Amino acid sequence: MAAVQAAPVLVDAMGGDHGPDATVHGAVRAHRDHGVAVTLVGHGDEIGARLRRHGAEAEIEILHAEQAVPMAERGAGALAWRRSSLAVGCAALAGAAGSGLVSAGSTGAVVACAVRGLGRAPGVLRPALAVALPTLDGGATVLVDAGATADPAPPMLAQFAGLGAGYARRVLGVAAPRVGLLSIGSEPGKGNRLAREAAELIAAAAPAAGLRFAGGVEGHDVLTGAVDVLVTDGFTGNVVLKNVEGTVRTVLAMVARAGGAHPARLREVARRYCPETHGGAALLGLAGTVVVAHGSSDAATIARACVVARDLAGTPATGDGDG
Amino acid sequence: MAAVQAAPVLVDAMGGDHGPDATVHGAVRAHRDHGVAVTLVGHGDEIGARLRRHGAEAEIEILHAEQAVPMAERGAGALAWRRSSLAVGCAALAGAAGSGLVSAGSTGAVVACAVRGLGRAPGVLRPALAVALPTLDGGATVLVDAGATADPAPPMLAQFAGLGAGYARRVLGVAAPRVGLLSIGSEPGKGNRLAREAAELIAAAAPAAGLRFAGGVEGHDVLTGAVDVLVTDGFTGNVVLKNVEGTVRTVLAMVARAGGAHPARLREVARRYCPETHGGAALLGLAGTVVVAHGSSDAATIARACVVARDLAGTPATGDGDG
Repeated sequence: MAAVQAAPVLVDAMGGDHGPDATVHGAVRAHRDHGVAVTLVGHGDEIGARLRRHGAEAEIEILHAEQAVPMAERGAGALAWRRSSLAVGCAALAGAAGSGLVSAGSTGAVVACAVRGLGRAPGVLRPALAVALPTLDGGATVLVDAGATADPAPPMLAQFAGLGAGYARRVLGVAAPRVGLLSIGSEPGKGNRLAREAAELIAAAAPAAGLRFAGGVEGHDVLTGAVDVLVTDGFTGNVVLKNVEGTVRTVLAMVARAGGAHPARLREVARRYCPETHGGAALLGLAGTVVVAHGSSDAATIARACVVARDLAGTPATGDGDG
Repeated sequence: MAAVQAAPVLVDAMGGDHGPDATVHGAVRAHRDHGVAVTLVGHGDEIGARLRRHGAEAEIEILHAEQAVPMAERGAGALAWRRSSLAVGCAALAGAAGSGLVSAGSTGAVVACAVRGLGRAPGVLRPALAVALPTLDGGATVLVDAGATADPAPPMLAQFAGLGAGYARRVLGVAAPRVGLLSIGSEPGKGNRLAREAAELIAAAAPAAGLRFAGGVEGHDVLTGAVDVLVTDGFTGNVVLKNVEGTVRTVLAMVARAGGAHPARLREVARRYCPETHGGAALLGLAGTVVVAHGSSDAATIARACVVARDLAGTPATGDGDG
């Protein structure tokens, strides 16, 4: 499964609620189970002790950083930690010492550090967060933007369509992605001003971009697999992503209360439908690949995020290992 | 339970997927089970035959209308049907022959006819749809706007807060409603431009309006009962409402596939969490009370919508019969 690659995936060892315990274990699993070359970024002593515990000190390199961004820093405040694992990781990525970066730090902190440390890719107006939502049919729909840009202009949404389609090709292995625009009706002319203007731009650009534009997609089709890529602004996308998570929790709690369902089976559904733990959110449109794993990520989730980072940075995937 | 009232609730007998079969039965149940005075609007012969089947021809009056808006008319096209049950019902409401109107026609058609036929209430900038979402704690949160005004300006959102609080007082019996603004973070300064500007206006107006402003509420708290009223623009609100419905269906399908859960209990959760069938969507801010019941409404749902219409039009409810 391992692709030939120029540089390892950098893993921010200090981010996340479980700190180096989860990130180091996740990096070891990414290497051993998925063949991903990994470098851990963070405090050398803390990482080294845990690598030895896994007998992996010869497999994985360490890039030392003396600081860690506190999990309470949820935005631009993270920029003040100039020698943090996040800052050092972004600098290494900018210097081509890595092919991608995975962090389980807070999304706001990672976005702030990555935008500052990497800058935008040539021609890209604004970055966007992409999350692969598991769908009922066993596949996934890439929701983009899930929260990076709250007030995009229509041309930015049109770029998000292209960025999301790139994710669908590289990570999900979809050759000609079906792209929809989240809206309040499928007929042309439905939606708010932003959606209506973006729809025209995406429709015009779709043939040359090699994507199939499916028009407006309503809220009840977010999880049905109606499209491969679902484009929206970062405000609506973030509300929808969190609404999916909250609704899944509420429904499972209601089912559990009603009685008769096996708790283990409900937990399995809950795990599957907690989108942020499913491969992480990819920050697209920067001059480097960044994947934000959920703060509560365990080793398996970190490992999965490393696979996504490798696939995004490398050649298009052939569809193995996902969906 | 019956409140003293000046005029009956008008029920559009011809709307909905099940037509007069469901609406006439629902009107009969509203009168018999909930003490709501009702007048059925639509084709006299079709309504009369069904009222006789229920032995209710002496209980419920008929207001004849010779046309019915086809269910395929989902917007302003409905205005062409000038002698429809919807148009006749709106005219009767404007002429004070009813205290409120219930229709299971398409939301777009009902909104178009009601705005044309009734006009806005004095001082109201734009109408808003309010839907009472059942919450995990057994109560309800009023989502407003759920789809009437796709591109509101900040002062309109501030008015939606007041309209939603009125709904919470009259229908849910909440004396001092907690009002939240749907956003992407609870800290001040989070959100898109619209949400940030609306937050300042709502915070400034809250004390005089007798409501408690709770600030930003994120997507995972839509169903947790964090607030009594959740304010948003009609684009985001419509996406969220449909996303809740779709996610509920998806999760229950996953649970059913996993096996071991009782189908009847899953159906009960599904029924409870299909928000549009739970009392209907109230169109607020017009010079008259209009409740849009879901197109698939059965008799019980129509009856419940009649109760909501009566409570919205009349004196504040004391909390009986809801959530």
